[in-house]
Amino acid sequence: GVYSVLKSELLNDPAFEWTDDSRQWVERMLDYNVPGGKLNRGLSVVDSYKLLKEGKDLTEDEVFLASALGWCVEWLQAYFLVLDDIMDNSHTRRGQPCWFRVPKVGMIAVNDGIMLRNHIPRILKKHFRQKPYYVDLLDLFNEVEFQTTSGQMIDLVTTIEGEKDLSKYSLPLHRRIVQYKTAYYSFYLPVACALLMAGENLENHVLVKDVLIDMGIYFQVQDDYLDCFGDPEKIGKIGTDIEDFKCSWLVVKALEHCNEEQKKILFEHYGKTDPADVAKIKALYNDIDLQGVFSEYESKSYDRLTRSIDAHPSKAVQAVLNSFLGKIYKRQK
Amino acid sequence: GVYSVLKSELLNDPAFEWTDDSRQWVERMLDYNVPGGKLNRGLSVVDSYKLLKEGKDLTEDEVFLASALGWCVEWLQAYFLVLDDIMDNSHTRRGQPCWFRVPKVGMIAVNDGIMLRNHIPRILKKHFRQKPYYVDLLDLFNEVEFQTTSGQMIDLVTTIEGEKDLSKYSLPLHRRIVQYKTAYYSFYLPVACALLMAGENLENHVLVKDVLIDMGIYFQVQDDYLDCFGDPEKIGKIGTDIEDFKCSWLVVKALEHCNEEQKKILFEHYGKTDPADVAKIKALYNDIDLQGVFSEYESKSYDRLTRSIDAHPSKAVQAVLNSFLGKIYKRQK
Ligand SMILES: [Mg+2]
Ligand SMILES: [Mg+2]
Ligand SMILES: [Mg+2]
Ligand SMILES: [Mg+2]
Ligand SMILES: [Mg+2]
Ligand SMILES: [Mg+2]
Repeated sequence: GVYSVLKSELLNDPAFEWTDDSRQWVERMLDYNVPGGKLNRGLSVVDSYKLLKEGKDLTEDEVFLASALGWCVEWLQAYFLVLDDIMDNSHTRRGQPCWFRVPKVGMIAVNDGIMLRNHIPRILKKHFRQKPYYVDLLDLFNEVEFQTTSGQMIDLVTTIEGEKDLSKYSLPLHRRIVQYKTAYYSFYLPVACALLMAGENLENHVLVKDVLIDMGIYFQVQDDYLDCFGDPEKIGKIGTDIEDFKCSWLVVKALEHCNEEQKKILFEHYGKTDPADVAKIKALYNDIDLQGVFSEYESKSYDRLTRSIDAHPSKAVQAVLNSFLGKIYKRQK
Repeated sequence: GVYSVLKSELLNDPAFEWTDDSRQWVERMLDYNVPGGKLNRGLSVVDSYKLLKEGKDLTEDEVFLASALGWCVEWLQAYFLVLDDIMDNSHTRRGQPCWFRVPKVGMIAVNDGIMLRNHIPRILKKHFRQKPYYVDLLDLFNEVEFQTTSGQMIDLVTTIEGEKDLSKYSLPLHRRIVQYKTAYYSFYLPVACALLMAGENLENHVLVKDVLIDMGIYFQVQDDYLDCFGDPEKIGKIGTDIEDFKCSWLVVKALEHCNEEQKKILFEHYGKTDPADVAKIKALYNDIDLQGVFSEYESKSYDRLTRSIDAHPSKAVQAVLNSFLGKIYKRQK
């Protein structure tokens, strides 16, 4: 597969003098962290590029290049996750221990995260250096990484231990965190990669960007909703956003819809690990019918997104955007 | 100064929607980590560029751009140091607590390190996007970062807790670690930045690169030497390479020069924190006259470097390289 080709190129990169130990280390680190996810982000580069080519058959070379860009998005995701798990002191990821918890890894995981990030420009240089859109690819990955890091920062700074303050949580803050931390790299980046490969100038696609960011925010609201109301069997984990004092869409909406008495309950019991505290929060969410509030949000988002997509002049671009929307609308996992 | 201009641009970067909290956080983080060093690496971009222009007066614009590139090197250094201190569990840096030890920072420092790294392409895009060498600058910073991260990796992987093994230490391993971990970003990168600004193609300057890498290795050998034999007053810290089981040039040379009995002492006492163990190692270093071995290494390095520099066809390039060599030859700090 394309992954093995890229991996073997990286493990033989002539810009470094490899030792056997270091080559083995990086190989194990890549296999542990890069390919194990759902690959949604990576696959959507290829899918989007196909739709942009309006049914024309892709050459072998085009398939390889679009897949390579898809893998770059997966590498970026792996980089964010390895470091995020360290910062959140998490235990498991994708059904296995977080990389930094693997014996002998520990804080070397910080450098491994950095290494994953460094692999992206190595892949781009090897396969795209001669393309007219090479510099735009570099700029794109750099800007999206900056935005993701900035979103992470507001997330981290608003949840500093000892300064937890529910009155800071609001819809604009929630929107900002999820837009920067998730939407740019998960939704905009794969499509922007496909657009560049198709020879498009990203400055002419502000509308596409706006729709994808809007979709990314909707996706994260679903994530917040499923964390509390989803089926743990389907989503593959037991949500802990309430315990973790997360600036979740649910708590923001709860603050908006509750009366003074309910507000007291929120302030007293949100962000505690005791199941009795969590149960009080969930009961309150039910009392103010947050499931209904979410349902309405979901339909409204769908209508708004559909209208924006229909307004786009290009049928090919519409197809790309509808494909994304179709994959996430009313998702249960 | 140029630093305040760059800082204020970064704190108002339109690619992110700032909150007051996040702007304050980044400003404090930058002031704490970026400007406090010796600025050798940063200043050498401007110095080198001046020498390459052979005495022609620089325009205000040229001075600003060369300084901005110098600051990019300092930003890169700050990024490496913030993360290295986390991985090494260090306590102080430049006479103050390591950033991750500052109250309320903790593991947010991982994201802050990433943020420092992300600032570099933001600075480059803002000030160099229209320059013919823009893409070469991006490639240069990417390649040097990859090499540094790779050097860090061999360093980390050879000193995994519980697998400390002195028999793995050798001159080729030492050379590889210091060449990748230090020489590329500290010696090659500043000159390569100046060469690009002067319109040069880096592929035509392999000799310059080789000399600078050679010099960077010599510089790190001095660093290893001073850690044990330097004056703590002058170098500003008390060395702990012996306690830390570092793959220092001294222990590598000791292994080379010692007899079987002395080898036993090395294996038994190297990498222990007890001052009695450290004293045994230092006594052994004296017994085999490591100071004399270093002196000879220093003269030989100087002669070899001087000859390489003299062989260079350009007087301007010679001046750049001699300026670097002059700054480090027989340094006491
Ligand atoms: Mg996390
Ligand atoms: Mg997190
Ligand atoms: Mg979640
Ligand atoms: Mg260190
Ligand atoms: Mg270190
Ligand atoms: Mg040292």
